Amino acid sequence: MIIIVTGMPGSGKSRIVHEFERRGFPSVSMGDVVREETAKRGLALTKENVAKVSIRLRQELGQNAVAKLTVEKVRELLRESDVVVIDGVRSLDEVGTFRGAFPDEEIIIIAVHTPPHTRFERLRARGRHDDPQTWEDFEERDWKELKFGIGNVIAMADYMLVNDGSKEEYEKRVNRLVDRILTEH
Amino acid sequence: MIIIVTGMPGSGKSRIVHEFERRGFPSVSMGDVVREETAKRGLALTKENVAKVSIRLRQELGQNAVAKLTVEKVRELLRESDVVVIDGVRSLDEVGTFRGAFPDEEIIIIAVHTPPHTRFERLRARGRHDDPQTWEDFEERDWKELKFGIGNVIAMADYMLVNDGSKEEYEKRVNRLVDRILTEH
Repeated sequence: MIIIVTGMPGSGKSRIVHEFERRGFPSVSMGDVVREETAKRGLALTKENVAKVSIRLRQELGQNAVAKLTVEKVRELLRESDVVVIDGVRSLDEVGTFRGAFPDEEIIIIAVHTPPHTRFERLRARGRHDDPQTWEDFEERDWKELKFGIGNVIAMADYMLVNDGSKEEYEKRVNRLVDRILTEH
Repeated sequence: MIIIVTGMPGSGKSRIVHEFERRGFPSVSMGDVVREETAKRGLALTKENVAKVSIRLRQELGQNAVAKLTVEKVRELLRESDVVVIDGVRSLDEVGTFRGAFPDEEIIIIAVHTPPHTRFERLRARGRHDDPQTWEDFEERDWKELKFGIGNVIAMADYMLVNDGSKEEYEKRVNRLVDRILTEH
C-alpha cells in the first residue's frame, strides 16, 4: 500500500508522515529527492540551486520528473515494507505516475486542511529559513503549490484531516486516522 | 458578509446552502445564473444549451462571466440581508471577482469534502438526469470542475467540512459550523 500525504505549506503534513514512521513504515519526501539530486550534481543546497535542479529535471525527464525519481525509491522501500508513505505530491499527474508505476498497489491519498490564516501564523512562528514572514510572501508560496495543481490532489483525497484546533487535538485525529487506515486496508 | 460554498459534485454543498436559507439568509446559485441566461436567450434548458450559453458568456464577458453576472444578484440581495450565500464558485479567479466587487464585505469560503468513492455512490443513487452512472462518467464530470480550478478554492477554504459518515452526523456538523460562523463573524 502506498500512502500519499498532501496539503498546503504549514497544514501539518509532516505530523502524519511521522506517525506512520513511528509505527515502522518508511517514507520518501519528494523535496528530499530534489535536494539529493542537487547534491549529486555537486551543487550547494541553496534554495536557488534546488529550484534550478528542479527545473532542469523537468527538462530532462518531463513534467513528472520528481515523481519518476521517487518511483525508484518507493520500489526499493516496498521490498521491505507493506506500507510506504510519499510526502510532497503536488498534482494529479504525479498521482497518475505512481498509479502507473504500481498498478497492483493500493494507493491512498490523505489530505490535511488548515485555514490559510492559521497556516500563515504557524509558518511565521516556525521561521524556517524559507518560511514566509509577510502575507505577500505567504500568498506567493501558496501560489507556487497551487499552480502545480495541489488543490486537485486535495479535492480528490480519500481521507481529509482538518487541523484547525489545538496541537493535541490534531495529534489525536492523526492517530485515529492512521489506526483506521491500517485496519480498513 | 458573503459566504462562498464550494465542493466537488455530490459532496454535500446544498445541505450547507439550505441551512443558511432555513435561517433566513438568501443564496445565489451560479448554475441558476447560467440557466436563467439560457432561458433569457430563448433556448430550452437542455444540458447542451446551458453549456453553450456558458461558453458564449465567457466569450462576451471574459473568463469570469458567470461570476460577473452573479455579482449583480449578490449586490441586490445584500440590500436586504447581512449574509448572502454563493453556491457554485469554481476558481480562485471567481473568488477574486467577488473580492474586487465587494471590497468592504467579509468573504468566507466554506468547502465540503467527501471521498471520491462515496461521492460516486451518492451521485449514482441520486440519479438526477446529469448524474454519472459509471465511474468513467464520474471522473469526466469531476474533471470538468477540476480544470476550472475548484481544487484551489477547496485548498484555500476558511472552513472545511468533512462529509464521510452518516447523513445525520453531517447535518450536525453543518449546523454547528453555521452557528460558529454566525457567532464568530
